[in-house]
This record gives sequence, C-alpha cells and structure tokens, in this order.
Amino acid sequence: MNLHETIRLIGDQALTASRKMVRLSTKKKNAILNAMADAIDQQRDLIKEANSQDLALGRANGLSSAMLDRLALTDARIGNMIKGIRDVALLPDPVGKKIWKRTRPNGLAIEKKRVPLGVIAIIYESRPNVTSDAAVLCIKTSNAVILRGGKEAFHSNLAIARALQEGGASAGLPNHALQFIETLDREAVRELVQLEDRVDVVIPRGGESLIRAVVENARVPVLKHYKGVCHVFVDASADMDKALAIAENAKCQRPGVCNAMETLLVHQDVASAFLPALGLLAARQKVELRGCKAACSILPACKPATEADWSTEYLDLILSVRVVKDLKAAITHINTYSSHHSDAIVTSDARNAKKFLKEVDSAAVYVNASTRFTDGGEFGMGAEMGISTDKLHARGPMGLEELTTYKYLVSGTGQVR
Amino acid sequence: MNLHETIRLIGDQALTASRKMVRLSTKKKNAILNAMADAIDQQRDLIKEANSQDLALGRANGLSSAMLDRLALTDARIGNMIKGIRDVALLPDPVGKKIWKRTRPNGLAIEKKRVPLGVIAIIYESRPNVTSDAAVLCIKTSNAVILRGGKEAFHSNLAIARALQEGGASAGLPNHALQFIETLDREAVRELVQLEDRVDVVIPRGGESLIRAVVENARVPVLKHYKGVCHVFVDASADMDKALAIAENAKCQRPGVCNAMETLLVHQDVASAFLPALGLLAARQKVELRGCKAACSILPACKPATEADWSTEYLDLILSVRVVKDLKAAITHINTYSSHHSDAIVTSDARNAKKFLKEVDSAAVYVNASTRFTDGGEFGMGAEMGISTDKLHARGPMGLEELTTYKYLVSGTGQVR
Repeated sequence: MNLHETIRLIGDQALTASRKMVRLSTKKKNAILNAMADAIDQQRDLIKEANSQDLALGRANGLSSAMLDRLALTDARIGNMIKGIRDVALLPDPVGKKIWKRTRPNGLAIEKKRVPLGVIAIIYESRPNVTSDAAVLCIKTSNAVILRGGKEAFHSNLAIARALQEGGASAGLPNHALQFIETLDREAVRELVQLEDRVDVVIPRGGESLIRAVVENARVPVLKHYKGVCHVFVDASADMDKALAIAENAKCQRPGVCNAMETLLVHQDVASAFLPALGLLAARQKVELRGCKAACSILPACKPATEADWSTEYLDLILSVRVVKDLKAAITHINTYSSHHSDAIVTSDARNAKKFLKEVDSAAVYVNASTRFTDGGEFGMGAEMGISTDKLHARGPMGLEELTTYKYLVSGTGQVR
Repeated sequence: MNLHETIRLIGDQALTASRKMVRLSTKKKNAILNAMADAIDQQRDLIKEANSQDLALGRANGLSSAMLDRLALTDARIGNMIKGIRDVALLPDPVGKKIWKRTRPNGLAIEKKRVPLGVIAIIYESRPNVTSDAAVLCIKTSNAVILRGGKEAFHSNLAIARALQEGGASAGLPNHALQFIETLDREAVRELVQLEDRVDVVIPRGGESLIRAVVENARVPVLKHYKGVCHVFVDASADMDKALAIAENAKCQRPGVCNAMETLLVHQDVASAFLPALGLLAARQKVELRGCKAACSILPACKPATEADWSTEYLDLILSVRVVKDLKAAITHINTYSSHHSDAIVTSDARNAKKFLKEVDSAAVYVNASTRFTDGGEFGMGAEMGISTDKLHARGPMGLEELTTYKYLVSGTGQVR
C-alpha cells in the first residue's frame, strides 16, 4: 500500500468509527476516558522509555535545551496528563444539548441539537502531552480522531497513543476511533488534509510555518490561529499603576505564549508620565524596547521600531511601543496590525471602554485586565483544544462545544409542502 | 490598475467599510434597508430596461426558455424583491445579542456576544433577485458585502446594485459597504477568494461547478452546499398513505430544488405492498424510475439503476429506488450516498425514528415529513442566505445569525495572571 492509499484507509476507518461514536452515551465515553487515564498510568515505564529515545535523538540532533525540556516527560508531567484526562471526563458533555426547539404552525416540531463533527485531524508539534490532551477532547465529544505528531516526539507520542488506544478499547472505544499516523513522511500531512469527504476538520497546533503549510494544502476546513500579536492601549484616563501592572503581566509573565503582549500603545497626553515608569520596568525585567519616534524621544533605552515590528510576534522579552494621538488612532493601529487574538485598553473612561470593545475586531477584547486571560480554563470553559483567530465556527479559546456541530431533527405526522 | 489591483482595492474598501458598519444601530440599519427598497421601487424602469438588455443578449446567445424565464424581471418579481427587503428590515437583529455572560472567581466579567463577520463575498449565478436578497442580509447583520453575479444577468444585477447603493447612501450606508464587481473576467473570482486578510467568508450560490471552482481556488473560508441528494426511507411500519404523500411531495412538488428527494429506500418487508402504488404515482406524475434489482422485479416500468445513480442529483422528474434489508441498511446507504442535506424516514416505530434521527449524518433529518421543508422560512428563521452542507460554522439553512460571529468582551478592574 502506498502512502496515498494508507492515508485514505486511515480516513475510511475514521469515518466508519465516527458512525459508531455517535451511539456512545456520556457515561460510556467517560468510562472510556478513565480507562485511558488508567492505561497511561499502567504504561508509565513504556512511555518514559520511549521518551528517553526521543531525548537521546534530540540531543544527538542538537535540539536546544528549551526544546529538550519541552519534550521531556517526567513523572509529574505524566501525572498531569492523567489528571487532565480525568478532568475532561468530569466536564459536561455538549453532545445532545438542545440549542432550541420550536413547533411550527403546520405542527412540525423542529429541534436544533448539538452533534459531533465526525472526524477531526490534529497536526501538532513538539510537546507529547498534546497527544493525550487533543485525543480525549475529541473522544469526549464523540468524534473520531486522527493524530499526527512532530518527529521530535515521535516515540513518546506513539507510546501515549498506544496506551490510549488500549485503555479505550478495554472500555468499549470503537476500533479506529483514535488513530495515530506512524509515518513521518511530510507528504502524509498533505494527503490527510485533502481528504474532504472523510475528515471534517483539521486543527494544526504549532508554529506559524506548520499552520501555513496546512492551510496551503488543505481542502478540509482548518481551525487555527497563526500567531498572537496582542496589544495593550494605555488611554489618557488610565490608572497608571494598573496600566503598569497589566503591561508587566501581559509582557513578562510568560512571553513565549500567544496571548502575551507584543505592542504597547500609549495616548500622547500621558506618554511622558507613563513611559519613564515603563522604561524602569523594562530595565528591571530585561525587556528590549522598540519604539516610534515619540516613544524613543522619551525613553533613551528605546531602539527605533521598523514597520515590521508592529506585526511581529516576538515570543520573547521584546516590546514595541507607540505613542498614539487618541483612542481612534489606537483602534486603527490595532485593527491594522493585530492578529485579532487579544487586545486590551486600560482606561477610566466608560465611553472609551465601550468604543474599544465594540470596534476592536479581535476574538477577545479587554478593559482593565491583562491579555493573558485568553484561555479556555480562565474563561470557564473547562478545557481547551487551542485558540482560533478565525471568525467562522470557533473564535477565541476552543473548548468542547467548538468540537461539535449541530443538526435539525424534524418530527411530523405526515406533513408535506 | 490591473485586475489584481482592482480586486485588492475592492477588498481594502470593503474592510474599511466593515469597520464603519459595526457602529450602526439596528434602527439605522433598518432605515437603510427601507431606503434601499424605496430606491428599487423608484428605479423600476431602469432595472427593467437593463433586464431587457440581458434578455435580448440571452435570446441571441440561445439561452433555454427556462433560463430566460428565471432571468426575467416582471413588475411582480420586482415587487417581491422590494417586499423581501422590507421583511428583512422587520427581522430581529442578531448583532449585539448576548450568548452568555459570566463572572469569574477573580472578578473578570466575560461576555460572549454576537458581532458581524466583517466582509462577506457572494458569488452567484442566474437570478438577479439574489443581488438584492444577499446584499440586504449582509447589511442587516452589519457586514460589508462584495457581490459578483453571473454574466447572463449582468445588466440587471448592476442596475439593482446601483439602486441599492444609492438608496443605502441616502440613509447613511457607509461608502463601499455594498460593492458590485463590474468586470466579467473569471480571474476576478479567483483574486477575490484569495483575499484572506480582507474577506472573511465567501458564499457561492449556484450550480455545483461554480461552487467547486470557488472551493478549488479559495484561501478564504467558504460556506456552501454542492448539491442535495435527499432520501426518503419507507420503513416496515410506515403508514402507506403518508409514505406515498411524502414521496410525491418530496419528488414532484419542485423537482429542481436541492431539498427534493432523489432516492427512495423501502424496507424489504413492505416493498411489494408499497412499490406498486409508487409505480402508479410515478406514471401519473411522469417520474422516471431507476431501481435496484429487487425494485425492478416489482416495478416493470423501472429501469436498472447504476452505481452512479445513487449519488446523482437529478433536479428532474427522475427517482432512484432501492429495496433495503432493514433500518440499518437504510442508514448505511444514506450515510454513504447522501449529500448530508435532508433525509427522511416514514415509520410508526418510535425506536426506529430515534435511531434514524441520531445516526443519519445530515443537516436536517426528518420523521414522517417531506424533505422539502429544509428552508430558512419553513424553519422559522425568517430569511435564508442559502443552505450549508458543511459542518463548520453553519449547517442547514443559513439565516441572519449564520452571517455573524462572536467575540469575548472581558471587563476587569486591573486583573493580572
């Protein structure tokens, strides 16, 4: 069987499994998830052994220590993986939820109800815990899932996937409901994302280049976010202490994540009051500043920003700073350069807050809070498959509900048109 | 300016207009719609003149009389167009609707709220009323819209679009919120559907080949349905009179539409009781029958069906007929060959009804009613942009809500993580 046929077969098997998944009750699915958690626990040694193989290969291939750290599976991390699965089992099941029900004048009863998407493909890089996190969210929502992990974590991913499959099977998970693509050929991804009559959605998780490659090739719909270029705008009426605390948190608490701030905008009326304090903060936190002309004139440590800076996701302790004329200019800057992920205003002016919330075209818009809160857990969704900066289907954190669709169930007594 | 630049400019202008659209109140938008209706009324003569041009060209180019009929704008049809606009003005506005609101333990107030998608491109064929229908649904939901109609209705579409633009402008519609692509170059469509940073969604409306061409080229998300291969399954316990009435309605009331039946499945236990009556109905309604071996052995007028028949949308008085072993075989047939649009069971068995509703993977699933009801109006949605057989974002009839997305508005008092 060549690669094309192999991937088609995986698609066929997933489709068949997805038809069986719709028959599982919530109770049954939760039992499957708990059996998966048990299997991970029982196969700890196998998983750690596989992980050692990946780490050895990684060292030999010169992976950075940061990469190796992300790859490593300690007992604590395996424990978190197990806890993560059990937590998903405890979450409410969106499948079967009634969105609305109405009876039409002709007597037809129409119910709009949540149902699984069908087959979900996840393409991811680096951290092996994604194998488990992503798979269980799909199973919980009665979807069949096809996993394709990155080459650095290949052995770890495979060991985790096998444990999940074995644990699931022991509790009644339909055959092929969880499949892991075992070839590392990059062509496999291309084949997978073209299976439009078998795969309902593909979710790429990883760096921008991975995501772009998936979008380029996909005929299947993609749920994604390319990057997070998030802003904090310090308005003229901002409480300066709050603005500084929010800026520090949004930039420094975890600079490598998508909801961290990349650009700070400040109203010209408060630039000379705010920026020196920001300069001290940057010096203390070792944040490199890149600013517009006005910002640089106030902050001697600030390098001049280039046009490219305004749309760069640094993922690092670097911050671009721009002085803007007013709220309108701030909104225009954000709508032009933002990745439409998370953007915040710090203000004491209720009208400005309202205008910012209304006119900034991003998944999450904040007043007087750090952009770092854009997260399924923080939003009270219980779990997160990732974050979407698309506008269709899912926008912002994707929880369980975003892994479902709906259908209309129409019951009559012989009605015709 | 070359075509590439022209289309990009149209995209830029739409994006700018979409930023202004979010500021319009419901009242303002409804006033704009009514002004558009007035303008169509005032420009009736111009519109009819343009339509005569299209009809003359159509005749010269040998369009079929059915095509010419669909193209023709009578006073009654223009009246319907005007009424359609005023009806949309009366519908509730989904923009600004709260989906949920919660306050988190840390005090953050999170609101999930409906907002416009932004820029919607509509690519359509044939009937000129789509120009008005599609435009007003987009405007009602605060979206900017780019229209690209088919060449047969070019002059009619242009005249309608100009009337809508002039009427809208007189009531405060932002400049370029409604744009009509005036070039007939097919390359324009390709350019348009690649504008992923300007256009949020493209909705193709027309034949399968138009839709496939859009999907092939699109980098922008597409909401679509290729075709409607709809089924009626007559179960062993079906009321035969109801089954016959539903079959007649689903096949004959309007055979050229997507929710008409293309294949009838019948349980083997009632095939010899039901099919002769179906044969009489087919003879009376001049429906050509194409059947499986078992169906042909009961129905002498039945031609043998080929494998291709099971997935063909005839859009005509042709029906494929298959005798199936049981409910399970019916569900498997439907999930294999259906276009996942609308499928029905006729049964008196509540368990079978439930199983059919649960396991048939289509946008609308029916018990004891005709598939012809899959329609925004019939479902009580008030208006319809089209029907989606996709599972992401919109499934089934697309009304106003499906032309919106949502965002999270987060209000705090200085919260950091």
